[in-house]
Amino acid sequence: MAACPAVVDATEERRTAAARLPPRIAFVGFGLIGGSIAMALREAGYRGSLAAWTPNGAGPAEGLRRGTVDDAPATSRAALEHADLVILAGPPLAVLAWLGEADLERVVASGTTATDVASTKGMVIAGAEARSLPFVGGHPMAGRETSGVSSAVASLFVDRPWVIVPAAAARERDTDRVTALAVAAGGRPIRMTADEHDLAVAAISHLPLVAAAALVEAIALSGDGRGDWTVARALAATGWSDMTRLARGDPDMGAGILATNSAAVAARLRAYRDAIDEWLRALEGHPSPDELRERLGAARDALTEPPQ
Amino acid sequence: MAACPAVVDATEERRTAAARLPPRIAFVGFGLIGGSIAMALREAGYRGSLAAWTPNGAGPAEGLRRGTVDDAPATSRAALEHADLVILAGPPLAVLAWLGEADLERVVASGTTATDVASTKGMVIAGAEARSLPFVGGHPMAGRETSGVSSAVASLFVDRPWVIVPAAAARERDTDRVTALAVAAGGRPIRMTADEHDLAVAAISHLPLVAAAALVEAIALSGDGRGDWTVARALAATGWSDMTRLARGDPDMGAGILATNSAAVAARLRAYRDAIDEWLRALEGHPSPDELRERLGAARDALTEPPQ
Repeated sequence: MAACPAVVDATEERRTAAARLPPRIAFVGFGLIGGSIAMALREAGYRGSLAAWTPNGAGPAEGLRRGTVDDAPATSRAALEHADLVILAGPPLAVLAWLGEADLERVVASGTTATDVASTKGMVIAGAEARSLPFVGGHPMAGRETSGVSSAVASLFVDRPWVIVPAAAARERDTDRVTALAVAAGGRPIRMTADEHDLAVAAISHLPLVAAAALVEAIALSGDGRGDWTVARALAATGWSDMTRLARGDPDMGAGILATNSAAVAARLRAYRDAIDEWLRALEGHPSPDELRERLGAARDALTEPPQ
Repeated sequence: MAACPAVVDATEERRTAAARLPPRIAFVGFGLIGGSIAMALREAGYRGSLAAWTPNGAGPAEGLRRGTVDDAPATSRAALEHADLVILAGPPLAVLAWLGEADLERVVASGTTATDVASTKGMVIAGAEARSLPFVGGHPMAGRETSGVSSAVASLFVDRPWVIVPAAAARERDTDRVTALAVAAGGRPIRMTADEHDLAVAAISHLPLVAAAALVEAIALSGDGRGDWTVARALAATGWSDMTRLARGDPDMGAGILATNSAAVAARLRAYRDAIDEWLRALEGHPSPDELRERLGAARDALTEPPQ
């Protein structure tokens, strides 16, 4: 009798991964991403305890009210103390600060796994390695336009990439736990180096943010543009909304991301400026429709051709 | 007794405008925009005859099948001959070609009103004025990601601006008819000069198209970028999709728009490159989060402050 083909059941895969997670998980930082991870773990049947701490306590209190977490300890020490897996669930600059805490160093030395969810990985991994922490960086590639734990949803990571970047001192068990976390939350774990990750997100996420902000500056904020911005704005349609949506995001979040990935973003931005310069030469040289069509066609083809 | 405040009933306003339209309307060119205008006029209760002609006849045939138009004449002459209002419903380069047709010149001389829906107005109005046509340019600021008459919807123009640009020889009746057309279709007529229009759409529509195409070129098509595009692409999320959506549009349409508005787009693009250059200087100079936050915050404020 022929063997049956394997049936892939994502929920079963998530449940299996959730069952492999250690019994105590703590969040340091608890907003949209942390809250969504907690909800996703519950959805996958995780039966351990979930604790959350943040500097002002608002997110964990909300998590307790919603039943998303079991505990909201008063101090980060208390949160770390009783955790087998610690998720630094904040933006890059916060993660960098938390990596320097002596309590974190102490608990990971005694076997606790530490990971994060920040959008840049180079400085985070460098910070962990400078302290020889057995740290495993993480970046779930998902988000929403709204932030905070009240915007959290269990489905945020489903089928989204979750980049995993083990630091040099990471133990095999640490990487296994973080991989199980990604799968249990619904994500697709992808191993990368910090450099690969940072160059890739500079391309598809951070350069687009800068391009959107520069568009607003050129049209709505440039010296001679203020007057006609009122006219132009009245005509704006979906194209303008799409191209400026990233510039409506939280400036704090954007600043932390760009500050911790400035070299990679600058390299991408330089290539972008070269492309802009070529467009400028074309448009100032009375271009033929054929020439423009060819260029626009090549860009469209690059977007629509199947990934290799 | 105090007077009651006026009750604005958009549907009533549209019906009144539709009743003011002349009895015979013809479309030269009949795709998404033309088809949507025809459907919107029927929705507003227009009872006159609607005819449509295109070079290959496919759109009008589809319009006949759907009952959107009453007639699909075999020649543009036949379509123009029996129309009081002619709508050149094609992209800029097609409208420029149609403006040169002797039949059009003949019917407008005998009282027919001619308008268009093209996305750029400077060359169209110049073309009309070179022939002393009593032409009234139009630009309904609405669209969809799909094109063709099969994508047409009656609601496409509801509450959208519809720019109206009378050429020098336009008669008062011509402008009135085109204004009634805009209102009957659900749009908000806005009078502008061709220059004002072209600079405004260069800002909020054509520069964004170029910025999107350049982003694809810099990331997916640049010499050393091909290899890591595969990696980056796997991580792409909504930010990348938003910022490149315009580059997925019809290259023919984009080329015609940029070719007929190249000076205004080049002027906007130069301001954009200046903003990009400032970002490049900031990012290459090890920027502080505070500095970046301030800049991103100013861009966000410009987008979110109420129009003046």
